[in-house]
Amino acid sequence: MATEAESADPPAAYTALLDEIERYNAVGSAQSVLSWDQQVMMPERGTPARSQQLSTLSSLSHELLVDGDVGDHLDTLDDESLTTDQQAVVREVRRQYRRAERVPRDLVEDISEASSEALGAWESARENDDFDEFAPHLDELVDLKRQYAEHIDPDADPYAVLFADYEPCLPLSKAESILDELRETLVPLIDDIRASDADLATDALDGTYDTDTQEDLARDVLELLDYDFDRGRLDTSTHPFTSGNQFDCRITTRFDPEDPLGSLLPTIHEFGHAYYTLGLPDEEFGTPLGDDRDLSVHESQSRLWENHVGRSEDFWELLLPKFTDRFPQAEDLSVRDAYEAANQVYDENLIRVEADELTYHLHIIVRFEIERELIGGDLAVDEVPDRWNELYEEYLGLTPPSDAVGCLQDIHWSHGSFGYFPTYSLGSVMAAQLYAAADRDIDELDERFALASSTRLASGSARTFTATGNDTRRAS
Amino acid sequence: MATEAESADPPAAYTALLDEIERYNAVGSAQSVLSWDQQVMMPERGTPARSQQLSTLSSLSHELLVDGDVGDHLDTLDDESLTTDQQAVVREVRRQYRRAERVPRDLVEDISEASSEALGAWESARENDDFDEFAPHLDELVDLKRQYAEHIDPDADPYAVLFADYEPCLPLSKAESILDELRETLVPLIDDIRASDADLATDALDGTYDTDTQEDLARDVLELLDYDFDRGRLDTSTHPFTSGNQFDCRITTRFDPEDPLGSLLPTIHEFGHAYYTLGLPDEEFGTPLGDDRDLSVHESQSRLWENHVGRSEDFWELLLPKFTDRFPQAEDLSVRDAYEAANQVYDENLIRVEADELTYHLHIIVRFEIERELIGGDLAVDEVPDRWNELYEEYLGLTPPSDAVGCLQDIHWSHGSFGYFPTYSLGSVMAAQLYAAADRDIDELDERFALASSTRLASGSARTFTATGNDTRRAS
Repeated sequence: MATEAESADPPAAYTALLDEIERYNAVGSAQSVLSWDQQVMMPERGTPARSQQLSTLSSLSHELLVDGDVGDHLDTLDDESLTTDQQAVVREVRRQYRRAERVPRDLVEDISEASSEALGAWESARENDDFDEFAPHLDELVDLKRQYAEHIDPDADPYAVLFADYEPCLPLSKAESILDELRETLVPLIDDIRASDADLATDALDGTYDTDTQEDLARDVLELLDYDFDRGRLDTSTHPFTSGNQFDCRITTRFDPEDPLGSLLPTIHEFGHAYYTLGLPDEEFGTPLGDDRDLSVHESQSRLWENHVGRSEDFWELLLPKFTDRFPQAEDLSVRDAYEAANQVYDENLIRVEADELTYHLHIIVRFEIERELIGGDLAVDEVPDRWNELYEEYLGLTPPSDAVGCLQDIHWSHGSFGYFPTYSLGSVMAAQLYAAADRDIDELDERFALASSTRLASGSARTFTATGNDTRRAS
Repeated sequence: MATEAESADPPAAYTALLDEIERYNAVGSAQSVLSWDQQVMMPERGTPARSQQLSTLSSLSHELLVDGDVGDHLDTLDDESLTTDQQAVVREVRRQYRRAERVPRDLVEDISEASSEALGAWESARENDDFDEFAPHLDELVDLKRQYAEHIDPDADPYAVLFADYEPCLPLSKAESILDELRETLVPLIDDIRASDADLATDALDGTYDTDTQEDLARDVLELLDYDFDRGRLDTSTHPFTSGNQFDCRITTRFDPEDPLGSLLPTIHEFGHAYYTLGLPDEEFGTPLGDDRDLSVHESQSRLWENHVGRSEDFWELLLPKFTDRFPQAEDLSVRDAYEAANQVYDENLIRVEADELTYHLHIIVRFEIERELIGGDLAVDEVPDRWNELYEEYLGLTPPSDAVGCLQDIHWSHGSFGYFPTYSLGSVMAAQLYAAADRDIDELDERFALASSTRLASGSARTFTATGNDTRRAS
């Protein structure tokens, strides 16, 4: 059957389905541009127009999927007559369609408008350290997202329904058991590390680093990693993120004069996201085959580059000359010291995106527990700050001095993204697995990080690395 | 009747119409953001995705106007039951609807895709001075736009149909007679000026001006003019333009180290566009009452600020200290010299956006004649460079040494915008009329330009100025 399907023209219903889906995805990618602009370029008072644009596109996108002929085409199609690639497209469209058809258009529009409004409120609340500014928006989003989950599956745990938006291929229970295992392993491990008397160069990067120069260095690193600036950009935003498609995938970072790693590692992290997206096949743009897989797979790519490359001693061998070139103040820094500083387990860090590799997951688990309680109706929005601080005390032994560096630090809830956080930890776990496999299959993998970019490319290892990611994506 | 309508709730069909139109316009304003991004921020190789996004939004926007209930609502509505504002909304929607319903969706999509592709080709052609790179795109756009005009009115002059997209309230014949009069008056006047032996400080601004500092100065000027950076931005693009709505209206300029006026005057020009847009009523966003009037009215605002303020001696009194502050090299420059330099009639300038107030219209007339011939089928695309050079010789006594500074200098044809250029001259004529009226009605208008911004605002003249523009807009 498969052989027959490979050689024949696709059935008319398939071609028609693809046309509809390409339009649907074009609207989605237009929304991404508007959202990138909102976070990076839009003037402060542009929100009312942007909210209306985004909510209109959300509802149009919903209508394209649900009200047109997509459902009919899906009913008509005989999967047996399709190639395996075509079957994958249909499987993915069917999954999206079945969820979307249950959600009323007005609700889609309300969620989009509410999250666009919430974004500005969150930015302001964070700046003013005033949770009350953000609370009514969060309350509205929790309520809207509960309704959304209820429409999709009234009998399921609403949080599990939301989680499936980001991670459709893994049951929540499995995710939960991974997070449990991480917590049970990491809490005592971190205690041991903190109690250890090993003398590490944790303060090797202390000092003040000019932020414009940090930006130059971030660009150096991106050049080194072979980021394609003809298909990307580096900008600054409150919260580092990546946005785009295989033709145009942009990253952001942010700069703190006291913390050069706080811009460097997020830059490498976002590069990992972008490198994955830029590796998607051009000719499949607008179809599920040209789109990224689940968020945890995406995160596996960013964490791979951040943790397994960016924090490796060999990579610092390559990076250090660039670093000291930009910051002559660090002329005495050794590769080993930089490596130790980049891999330290912080005693005091409150900020997820600046966390070390181990405590990172505890930051995630705090958010996971709070959002489950919020969506489950077990926690009121005004109790979030106290609950947050309580859990930080419990898992990290820290009490945030303010909500700005506490429950207001992340953008996600202002997007109405509940169920998103666990994918970060799942991605890190996947990254570790990918790395272990790559290390097994590629000779002297670590050592190659120390080679100049052109040599690395000639040896093919960088590309192999990405190919691994893509293969995994297809298989998952 | 009108009094009754004012006090009653609007008829249901009107409210429903407004909902549809707000969605339609939200898509349009989303397209503007994508297009701004494409010209200002998008990485070089992002075009394929952007073209697909823009063409999908074009066709969706078309469908929202034509395939939904807009036509039914328009049929149902009894204009007598509406307030005058509501009648204006309906009149404008009806006009747009009647044109759009005649154009097939595929053609709309083709035009959008072709112009998005053409943009990159134009940029590259201009950079490489290679008209052949752009020619096939131009050819396709001429063909598509002819088809478009044919659909709207098969019996009319296709150029007149296209012109009405930009200037629906003025017959082409009237525009033509205004342009004729300009040409007949300006050609001998310019000859007289060139033959004159008046000794003017035309070289007062010669020299080299650091472009970063030019940008600082452009920002100074925008502060001086009271541009609201909370609702706007200044960026750089190949071709200066303004894009946005009353919440977010952004301008661009460009910088040439040899020509400080070449960034300053376009900045003031684009400010005029933005100031008009930012003055539109917030609460009418998404309806025709919150949208700008015809392009010539828009242009009347930009030319008013550029020509009647930015080129006035009194304004330079205010500007000069900023100028010499940024450029100490110009410490000997006097207000009078700067004024003379800013108002000189160039002997040699080939570039429309850098033209003086008089020769400007000859640049327009060249384009007007060429695009009429192209759309009328009297000129083939590959004949454009020769025809361009011939007309420049005839009207301006100049032969462009290359197409880059000849027929490739403007972005408009790459957008498929045929019929747009005449609105520049019409706007300038309107600006002169507005200025004459303002000068009659406001005491010491010129002298007020020399006052600091806060004083000007306190006196109310700047706002009065804008109000004049808005009133005109409503009346035209």
